[in-house]
Amino acid sequence: MPEYPTALGASSLDKITLLGQDLAADVMGEVGFGELAFWLAIQRRPTPGETRVFEAVLAALADHGFTPTAITTRLTYLSAPDSVQGALAAGLLGGGSRFLGVTEDCGRFLHDALSTARGGPPTDEAGWDELALASVRSARAEGRVIPGLGHHVHKEGDPRTPRLFHIAAEEELVGPHLSLFAAIGRIHPQVLGRTLPLNGAGVCGAALADLGLPLELLRAFALLARTAGLIGQLAEEIRTPVANDIFLSVDLNNRAVPPHPADGGEASASG
Amino acid sequence: MPEYPTALGASSLDKITLLGQDLAADVMGEVGFGELAFWLAIQRRPTPGETRVFEAVLAALADHGFTPTAITTRLTYLSAPDSVQGALAAGLLGGGSRFLGVTEDCGRFLHDALSTARGGPPTDEAGWDELALASVRSARAEGRVIPGLGHHVHKEGDPRTPRLFHIAAEEELVGPHLSLFAAIGRIHPQVLGRTLPLNGAGVCGAALADLGLPLELLRAFALLARTAGLIGQLAEEIRTPVANDIFLSVDLNNRAVPPHPADGGEASASG
Amino acid sequence: MPEYPTALGASSLDKITLLGQDLAADVMGEVGFGELAFWLAIQRRPTPGETRVFEAVLAALADHGFTPTAITTRLTYLSAPDSVQGALAAGLLGGGSRFLGVTEDCGRFLHDALSTARGGPPTDEAGWDELALASVRSARAEGRVIPGLGHHVHKEGDPRTPRLFHIAAEEELVGPHLSLFAAIGRIHPQVLGRTLPLNGAGVCGAALADLGLPLELLRAFALLARTAGLIGQLAEEIRTPVANDIFLSVDLNNRAVPPHPADGGEASASG
Amino acid sequence: MPEYPTALGASSLDKITLLGQDLAADVMGEVGFGELAFWLAIQRRPTPGETRVFEAVLAALADHGFTPTAITTRLTYLSAPDSVQGALAAGLLGGGSRFLGVTEDCGRFLHDALSTARGGPPTDEAGWDELALASVRSARAEGRVIPGLGHHVHKEGDPRTPRLFHIAAEEELVGPHLSLFAAIGRIHPQVLGRTLPLNGAGVCGAALADLGLPLELLRAFALLARTAGLIGQLAEEIRTPVANDIFLSVDLNNRAVPPHPADGGEASASG
Repeated sequence: MPEYPTALGASSLDKITLLGQDLAADVMGEVGFGELAFWLAIQRRPTPGETRVFEAVLAALADHGFTPTAITTRLTYLSAPDSVQGALAAGLLGGGSRFLGVTEDCGRFLHDALSTARGGPPTDEAGWDELALASVRSARAEGRVIPGLGHHVHKEGDPRTPRLFHIAAEEELVGPHLSLFAAIGRIHPQVLGRTLPLNGAGVCGAALADLGLPLELLRAFALLARTAGLIGQLAEEIRTPVANDIFLSVDLNNRAVPPHPADGGEASASG
Repeated sequence: MPEYPTALGASSLDKITLLGQDLAADVMGEVGFGELAFWLAIQRRPTPGETRVFEAVLAALADHGFTPTAITTRLTYLSAPDSVQGALAAGLLGGGSRFLGVTEDCGRFLHDALSTARGGPPTDEAGWDELALASVRSARAEGRVIPGLGHHVHKEGDPRTPRLFHIAAEEELVGPHLSLFAAIGRIHPQVLGRTLPLNGAGVCGAALADLGLPLELLRAFALLARTAGLIGQLAEEIRTPVANDIFLSVDLNNRAVPPHPADGGEASASG
Repeated sequence: MPEYPTALGASSLDKITLLGQDLAADVMGEVGFGELAFWLAIQRRPTPGETRVFEAVLAALADHGFTPTAITTRLTYLSAPDSVQGALAAGLLGGGSRFLGVTEDCGRFLHDALSTARGGPPTDEAGWDELALASVRSARAEGRVIPGLGHHVHKEGDPRTPRLFHIAAEEELVGPHLSLFAAIGRIHPQVLGRTLPLNGAGVCGAALADLGLPLELLRAFALLARTAGLIGQLAEEIRTPVANDIFLSVDLNNRAVPPHPADGGEASASG
Repeated sequence: MPEYPTALGASSLDKITLLGQDLAADVMGEVGFGELAFWLAIQRRPTPGETRVFEAVLAALADHGFTPTAITTRLTYLSAPDSVQGALAAGLLGGGSRFLGVTEDCGRFLHDALSTARGGPPTDEAGWDELALASVRSARAEGRVIPGLGHHVHKEGDPRTPRLFHIAAEEELVGPHLSLFAAIGRIHPQVLGRTLPLNGAGVCGAALADLGLPLELLRAFALLARTAGLIGQLAEEIRTPVANDIFLSVDLNNRAVPPHPADGGEASASG
């Protein structure tokens, strides 16, 4: 008979434990929600400084207005108002490579670059710049995108980026990922030939990686933040509905075209 | 051309606003994540006391060990490790009427009972008991379940319940829903003939309703809490995998039986 | 150690069975997909006539153009092109009470009405009209909607309805649910004071119920049909993308409004 | 104002078209469900032979017993029986890289190998063997897995594989992908040093690619097949429930362990 070990929630007749704590006495009323989410993910209680950086990241990622995920949650609620869980889940399913993935991609990019630094991470700005230059050049040589660079709206600078650097510095939590990300901000024009802003999604990935959160789950924290945002979208949709107007704006502007038989596409092109 | 009004996220070249605030300057590093989730839902910044009660509720609901939702998230990650968003969404989809629904059902039950109180809510314990008695009797007469009563493990009392009452009292946030729920705890043995504990999911619904959060979304806050819990489950699964053992424990104990043609079931029973 | 009985798929070293059949020899190449779906649901192989009615229903429900579910699948693919399963799942999540639910609601309504017929179902048109009249009157008296009546586009008649009646008649599969639905089409003007078309979603629910498919799963067959439709939407999106234009048409027409603090809404209205 | 072109569903007052056809007159009752799904995906009506191969693939992939996706659908229904769409969507979310991905991976692998064949695909068995040898060697040299080889149960041969080759041959639809896949079956022992069976998921991918279906959506057809299978699982769960036993078999065998603080894992390993 297999056993299933866990350090998460467990119950007995008169007690509930979570992460080895007495849930009622020592968690409820004592531990903030961001703090708890961090603790659940890493099984270590964060310091107040770590919590502040973590919650700043969650705030930065919670809601970006009428994104595809927000529209999806509203449309799904319109179709199936009986299932709030379905509307939230549908929105989260948009949290993939393109819209929420930059946070994870940036954390991974920085991590991989750091792992190439022989003799440990650099100790001065020149060292960081050198590592940044090598990693950006190498990515460019392989035709890879540098995640965290550029923003389609904030072309002259994403206001979240300096703010998060500032908060991390206040809490003495600027680690190697943020340091390398800052260096990429300094040196990338030498390689790319133009200056791009360090974007908010990227700096969030760097900050989460510096907090020691698992790289495989950086996207998950963006999704946690977004869950709060999507609840905000649902609440607003309930009070000021727009989903039906969105639906009609598409449906009324459909244009029937004849079927366009695939010429075999990718697949048969090889045949 | 339709317009889509929103008070949530909005961006311009050099600024991001959220709920009318400057996101970088005034939200990041200044607003906790629970506080922000409340603010997004109700478009009003909560007081510190409201935030504390709200986060206590989220802590109470975040993780209950190997629930069907937790198992689902782990199994989905096993099958599709490339899609963290899919694993979280799959888990949240279990947040329906049976497992996470008590919170919402209890909030609604209390709300409906309160709306029958002529002349406003009671002002003393006797008044609350009278209203509670009427609402429990009426529900029983209609064969309806009283949500928030009973627990399959904590048969002698759910430790979260007195704790949440205590926190709400400390913050002077015991409102009509919690008051009525307490009264149900006192009077239900007169109607049901036995004493059941007030459970944690129920008291959470009462507390959320007293915070003025929309009844349609009480389930959504349980889902927000659970998102943090499911991330904890995923993180633990990555470090100490059990999903494959769970899968095998089912698959290896399958027993082939002959098909059992439906005799038409519900539908044809009428035919 | 629990055992898990099943008549569905099972494997041994050299054989795979499904529903007690040899999958390779007797199902692959021998059983159509609609036929198999029916067989899986009811564990009895349908007759050719049953398969034809069933597949006609699936065709009727497969795709209705730019519905919220179709838009959702396209937007989710735009955000997360790495996860086709997420895009399909997100679209299906809109298959709830409002957009795909009529099929199920209509099947249930007819079933419930039939269960009130003392002495079994009627045997002539006058008997059906009487039962229809009683059920429509009773629903109206309780303020309930009659599912399957009315259509926002096909105001003078939904072309799917007479066609499905015709197919069912050809296959001698007009059972009590379709008979009662037809009677509702004849008598409802007497009760409602105006003539509404019997819609396609409703007649599909009646036909599925007459096939003996479980009422709890009528919605599931609409979702199966829709899965095929959503794959069509995805394929078209890949070849002729519109999701980004849909997203921009919303995002560019957003209008920032000040936060509108909930006055407590439903919940606090009682407080 | 953007317009949204589509060849899929469209409605007018008295007519519904789908793929340019009159839905009621020319699709309902005339087009099988597998045939329609193919047509929707590729906007060309398949021949009867193409339909037979396509439906054989769907049959092969519909249900494999108590897979993680089947367990997930049952557990989600247990938790949220009010939302059939949620239970199906949750199951489909497991249709990712590990469990349902082989079909897609195999189709892509074959396609990529074919695109390296200078002068078009081979014309005799020796030519196919040469191309297969080159592609398997190249994959091995890069440390890549050969998709479609091996099966954890059917170690001496997957019964679906010869059957699908046979059906495709009967319908004269053995194209370059199936030919190359067969050649891989012949030559891989030379490279791998042992003989593995060609598995059913792989041959399905090869057959779908030979049908000219888009490579990006091969996984989607596996999901369509699985939707029918999951409805079968739900129907069986409703009649013979096992989900609660599965849940309890995990929950009752949980073992509380102390939290195990991440030592920083991947991320901090670099710091």
